[in-house]
Amino acid sequence: LVSKVPQVLLSIGEGVTCVKPGDKVIPLCLPQCGECSFCLNPDTNCCLKTHRFTCKGKAIHHFLWISTFSEYTVMPDSAIARIDDDAPLDKVCLFGCGFSTGYGAAINTAKVKPGSTCAIFGLGGVGLSVVVGCKSAGASRIIGIDINKDKFTKARELGATECINPQDFKKPIQEVLLEMTGHGVDYSFEVVGHTDTMVSALVSCHMGSGTCVLVGTPPLGSQLSFDPLLLFTGRTWKGCLIGGWKTKDSIPKLVSGYMEKKFNPDVLITHTLPFDKINEGFELLQSGKSIHTVLVF
Amino acid sequence: LVSKVPQVLLSIGEGVTCVKPGDKVIPLCLPQCGECSFCLNPDTNCCLKTHRFTCKGKAIHHFLWISTFSEYTVMPDSAIARIDDDAPLDKVCLFGCGFSTGYGAAINTAKVKPGSTCAIFGLGGVGLSVVVGCKSAGASRIIGIDINKDKFTKARELGATECINPQDFKKPIQEVLLEMTGHGVDYSFEVVGHTDTMVSALVSCHMGSGTCVLVGTPPLGSQLSFDPLLLFTGRTWKGCLIGGWKTKDSIPKLVSGYMEKKFNPDVLITHTLPFDKINEGFELLQSGKSIHTVLVF
Ligand SMILES: NC(=O)c1ccc[n+]([C@@H]2O[C@H](COP(=O)([O-])OP(=O)(O)OC[C@H]3O[C@@H](n4cnc5c(N)ncnc54)[C@H](O)[C@@H]3O)[C@@H](O)[C@H]2O)c1
Ligand SMILES: NC(=O)c1ccc[n+]([C@@H]2O[C@H](COP(=O)([O-])OP(=O)(O)OC[C@H]3O[C@@H](n4cnc5c(N)ncnc54)[C@H](O)[C@@H]3O)[C@@H](O)[C@H]2O)c1
Repeated sequence: LVSKVPQVLLSIGEGVTCVKPGDKVIPLCLPQCGECSFCLNPDTNCCLKTHRFTCKGKAIHHFLWISTFSEYTVMPDSAIARIDDDAPLDKVCLFGCGFSTGYGAAINTAKVKPGSTCAIFGLGGVGLSVVVGCKSAGASRIIGIDINKDKFTKARELGATECINPQDFKKPIQEVLLEMTGHGVDYSFEVVGHTDTMVSALVSCHMGSGTCVLVGTPPLGSQLSFDPLLLFTGRTWKGCLIGGWKTKDSIPKLVSGYMEKKFNPDVLITHTLPFDKINEGFELLQSGKSIHTVLVF
Repeated sequence: LVSKVPQVLLSIGEGVTCVKPGDKVIPLCLPQCGECSFCLNPDTNCCLKTHRFTCKGKAIHHFLWISTFSEYTVMPDSAIARIDDDAPLDKVCLFGCGFSTGYGAAINTAKVKPGSTCAIFGLGGVGLSVVVGCKSAGASRIIGIDINKDKFTKARELGATECINPQDFKKPIQEVLLEMTGHGVDYSFEVVGHTDTMVSALVSCHMGSGTCVLVGTPPLGSQLSFDPLLLFTGRTWKGCLIGGWKTKDSIPKLVSGYMEKKFNPDVLITHTLPFDKINEGFELLQSGKSIHTVLVF
C-alpha cells in the first residue's frame, strides 16, 4: 500500500460533536454512519452510505470514500475517527486500511484458534498483517506463500514459521500445502487478488472444518470457477472488508493498542517519501520492493 | 428420499461392546470411528474410514456406507448407532439421513439466530427438514422456494411463512428475494443439488452478514461459476454432510428427542410401501409426488 499521513482536523461544521478542531483523525475508507440497518447489525461492518459529495444535486462517487491525496478535504463525521492525541501520524496511518484489514481478517473473520495451522497467500502489507493476526491468535503453524521471496524475511520476523514460493514446485501450491499438512490448513487467506489463488486457497483448506478468507480484491467483473464439492464436504469460504472492523468504533481502539505496544506494524513501513514523490511510491509497490510507503506532506 | 426401516441387531463380532443382539440400531451413512484425526476434531463430522468391506485384500467402495437394501448385512461398530428400544423403526429411519441433514444444516451449520430471515431452495424431504430447523431456531421469516407448488402445503404446515415458485416470476428468483427482504436473507439453504440454484442462494444473502449453506449434492465433476465480490463483501458460503452431526454420538440423541416429541418428522412420510415396490418408491420421488417413502420388509 501507499498511505498518506492522517489529517489534523481544522474546523467542524454545525452539529458535529464527535471531534473538535485540532483533533487527530483517520479518514475512514468504509464509513460508519451508526444509523443505517447495516450499522445497527452487529454482524457486519458495511454501511449504506455510498458517497459524501454531491454536485448540482447529483452524488459524486469516488474511490473508497477517501480517494484524495489532497491537503484539505471535507469529510462527514461518519467517515472520520478521532485517535489518540499522542499518536504519531506517520506511523498510525497504517490503521486506516492495511494493518487493520489483515489483522482483522485473522481475528474477526477467520477467528483463528490457538494451536491451528494457517496459510497466507500473498505477503504484501495486508498479508503480513494477517501473519501478525494469526500469531497473536496463537496459531502454531503459519505458512507464508509468495512468488517474491524477498518478502520472506519480514514474514518470518512477524511470525511465519515457514515460507514457500509456488515457483519452486512442479506441482500446484495447494497440493504442496496438502502434503505439508496432511489434510490441509485450518485457515487460509487469499491476500493477492487473483481468482486462481482464491481457488488454491480454498482447496488448501482442511475438509470438514477448514475456513478460507478472501481478503484480496477480485478483479472487477471477474467470475471464479470451482468444484462445489469443496464446500459440500464442509469447508467455509468467506470474505471481509477492512478486516470486519466497525471502523469508527474500532480504529481508535486499534491505535490505542498500538500506543500500548500491543502490536507494532512499524516494521511494515519500508519507505517514507515526500508527497511529490508519490509516483515513486507506486513504482516501489508495483516492483515488489516496498511493503508500505508513507507519504508525508 | 426413499428410506429403508432400520435394522435390529442379530449378532455381534469379537470386541464389539457398544451394542448387543436385539438392540435397535440405525446404520450410519457417515461413520464415526472415534479415533481418526477428523473424529478427534470437534469442528467436523467427517471420518477418515472410507470402506467397510474388502475382497481379496482390496477395499470395496460403495454408496454412502450403507448402499444396501438387503435384509442382512455386516457393519463395523463405527457405522451403527444404538437407538431407544421403544423407537418405531418405520418412523425413526428418517434420522439416518434426511431429517438429521436438514435440521442440522439450520442448527449446526448455519446456526440460525432468533428473529432472522431464512430462504430454503428445494422443499423435498431434506429442505422441509431445514424449515423445521429454522423454525425451531426461532427464525421469524422462513421463505420456501420450489418449482413444484404441491410442496407448499407441507412447508407452511412445518413453519414456512411464505412460499414462492420461481416459475411465477419473470425476473431471477434471487432478485425477487432481494426485493422481498430489502437487502437479502440472513441465511439461505440450497437443497436441490443444481449449480444454478447454488449461485442464486448465495446471491440472495445479505451483503456483509449473510450465510449460504450448500446442502444439495453437486453433480459429480461439476464446476460452479460466480462473482467473488459476493464473498469479498462479507457473505459466507459453507456446506455440510448429514447436517454436521457427529453421527454415532448425535443420531441416538435425535431419536430420543423424537421420543420426547421435540420434533415430529412423521409428517414427512407420505408413503409406506412393501420392499418389493421399491421402484414405485423411486418413481414417486422423481415425479415429485412423495416426500419420504419408507420401505418395510
Ligand atoms: N478486503 C479489504 O478490505 C482489503 C483492504 C485492503 C487491501 N485489500 C486487497 O488486498 C490485496 C493485497 O494488498 P497489498 O497491499 O498487501 O498488496 P501487495 O501488492 O503489497 O501484495 C501482494 C503480494 O502478493 C504476491 N503475489 C502475487 N502473485 C502471487 C501468487 N500467484 N501467489 C502468491 N503470492 C503472489 C506479491 O508478490 C505481493 O507480495 C489487494 O488485492 C488489495 O486490493 C483488500
Ligand atoms: N449434505 C448432505 O449430507 C445430504 C444428505 C442428504 C441429501 N442431500 C441432498 O439434498 C438434496 C435434496 O434431497 P431431497 O431428498 O430433499 O430431494 P427431493 O428430490 O425430494 O427434493 C428436491 C426439491 O427441489 C425442487 N427443485 C428442483 N429444481 C428446483 C429449482 N430450480 N428451484 C427450486 N426448487 C427446485 C424439487 O421440486 C424438489 O421438491 C439432494 O441433492 C440430495 O442429494 C445432501
